[in-house]
Amino acid sequence: MQNLSNLEEKLGYKFKDKARLTVALTHRSAKNGANNERLEFLGDAVMDLIVGEYLFVKFNSNEGDLSKLRAALVNETSFSKFARFLGIGACLNMSASEEKNGGREKNSLLSDAFEATIGALYLEVGLEKTAKIVTTLLEKIYPKIEFNELVKDYKTSLQEITQAKFGVTPEYRLLGSTGPDHKKSFEMAVFVGGKEFARDIGNSKKEAEQKAAKIAIEILEKN
Amino acid sequence: MQNLSNLEEKLGYKFKDKARLTVALTHRSAKNGANNERLEFLGDAVMDLIVGEYLFVKFNSNEGDLSKLRAALVNETSFSKFARFLGIGACLNMSASEEKNGGREKNSLLSDAFEATIGALYLEVGLEKTAKIVTTLLEKIYPKIEFNELVKDYKTSLQEITQAKFGVTPEYRLLGSTGPDHKKSFEMAVFVGGKEFARDIGNSKKEAEQKAAKIAIEILEKN
Repeated sequence: MQNLSNLEEKLGYKFKDKARLTVALTHRSAKNGANNERLEFLGDAVMDLIVGEYLFVKFNSNEGDLSKLRAALVNETSFSKFARFLGIGACLNMSASEEKNGGREKNSLLSDAFEATIGALYLEVGLEKTAKIVTTLLEKIYPKIEFNELVKDYKTSLQEITQAKFGVTPEYRLLGSTGPDHKKSFEMAVFVGGKEFARDIGNSKKEAEQKAAKIAIEILEKN
Repeated sequence: MQNLSNLEEKLGYKFKDKARLTVALTHRSAKNGANNERLEFLGDAVMDLIVGEYLFVKFNSNEGDLSKLRAALVNETSFSKFARFLGIGACLNMSASEEKNGGREKNSLLSDAFEATIGALYLEVGLEKTAKIVTTLLEKIYPKIEFNELVKDYKTSLQEITQAKFGVTPEYRLLGSTGPDHKKSFEMAVFVGGKEFARDIGNSKKEAEQKAAKIAIEILEKN
């Protein structure tokens, strides 16, 4: 039970319904009583909405970029980081053989139990309070939530491809910028071997370069 | 604007922020000002959670069945039914060419605008009130929310397959039941040509049959 207190302390919330919290931490291999799969179903949707709304408010990006950002934050690897931060591994109930198999360290089990814990939290305190707790965690685990930090680095990938294919490094040129100073957008083009391959617009030069690089990769992969 | 009043009446809610509602009803082809894609991103996650929680509370099914049920209710075809019920087609803003192309009747445009409308509603009134409105709509559009009504009918599919392959009709036999009267579960087996092909457990005989039929189909499709 000391482990549960540690989890609650890290979460910043003391559960009223300890039985439900225990279910949230129970892998299906445990076999005695309910497991965490139903709560995981609920918690998954809760996380999608909370992280989606957080990004919706924080970034004035289009739907495609918001989806990419969310996909970088809402996935098994990411949720296993939340679970490790909360010390969920030590709280998991599972079968002896799953434990021997390293169950307490598996990303899949940790991620599922994290989602289920959020599901249990949501049932107890509702969306608004759950969102505050999750947002606090999110900002601790990801101190820098930025498009270029989280989404795959396309410029690096493109450079590797053009070096291998043509022995050249891509060049980026600013085509123009629009909008007021505090909300400018930039159009960048990427050139490979002196030829323009793609252009795109972003909220920063770096973002526009990344997006142009992504298009260039798609073109090169098709040929 | 009469169309908006009709939508609001069907929804049972009068929007305070008409500008945001207008954005929710604006397809990207319209080009003047913001379109509904960001609100659609948000509304999609709101619908996932509301319908997910509704099913979580209503059915004591496992995560796999809950996911299947939700997938039957949360998709483009289903959301276009909500949109048609609300008369969203008449309210859509789009380009002249999209309109000529039958945009007001396309499931994709209708579904997107419905999600965006729910996103706008959520930003205005929060989750709890949005959930009440959505649940009322859901029960009007789907008066009978049951596993066997919504999820693909595996018994029918299996019969078609065994008739074509072997010229026989599958038979179902009750193997047993457990649990108290108000919460019984049933185990059914499916026989094809006198041979047991599969068995599974459900909250009703019909559900157990469907699940056994599904397994039998998978076995037959592998061979």
